[in-house]
Amino acid sequence: MRPFEVLIASHGPLASALLAAAEMICGSTQGVSAVSLQPEDSPESFADRLRQALKPGTPTLILSDLYGGTPHNVACAVIGRDSNEVRCLAGVNLGLLIEAITATEPLDDELVGRLVTSSRDAIVDVSGRLAARKVTAS
Amino acid sequence: MRPFEVLIASHGPLASALLAAAEMICGSTQGVSAVSLQPEDSPESFADRLRQALKPGTPTLILSDLYGGTPHNVACAVIGRDSNEVRCLAGVNLGLLIEAITATEPLDDELVGRLVTSSRDAIVDVSGRLAARKVTAS
Repeated sequence: MRPFEVLIASHGPLASALLAAAEMICGSTQGVSAVSLQPEDSPESFADRLRQALKPGTPTLILSDLYGGTPHNVACAVIGRDSNEVRCLAGVNLGLLIEAITATEPLDDELVGRLVTSSRDAIVDVSGRLAARKVTAS
Repeated sequence: MRPFEVLIASHGPLASALLAAAEMICGSTQGVSAVSLQPEDSPESFADRLRQALKPGTPTLILSDLYGGTPHNVACAVIGRDSNEVRCLAGVNLGLLIEAITATEPLDDELVGRLVTSSRDAIVDVSGRLAARKVTAS
């Protein structure tokens, strides 16, 4: 059982699509929410939805889609007014979300460090491997 | 002008959502397509759609959502039968997609290496920076 909530913050439909993709692999999830910045949103209206999604006193990992983007910046501002139990990682990909959803450890420095490392390692250039396969196959 | 096509391959709606999020930031794009594995798809039907999206003889960068996932594995199999001008990166996040969309260099080892590095660097734990900000503000 994961001892923290996960909140995905993104431009447009990316947050809910990441969650849908993760659920195609992991099955139905609990304690994961997606908050999307819509074109008609102001930073304030997006911040309001983020605050509604956060549960006070509950450790929460926010995964934002892009460092420096509006969802990320607004999430950082919201965290600034919230508890110290909220952590934020920028640059979410599907591997990071699945690692976070399936984690069972407390939301501490060790877990966050592992998530950053594994999600970075999940960005792989497979072109070289394909070329090697072609050579082997010829 | 980017001298190659970009093709995003994902579970469910993730590919099209990544493209929609990128277009919220970069504006309308050309030469970018999204192919989504649906729950009712077989690997064969997904492979057929990938082949339809590839333009023979055109350099193409495939960005898949998860190394070892079905979209990624099928893309690798399709590339195996295609030209040597198709490259594949797994673990796409929004930063990687935007870097790829806005690239103007040829699709070679140097560009692919830069994309991998910059997208890995885009996965950032900002919790420490927030804590520092709180200390500064107190």
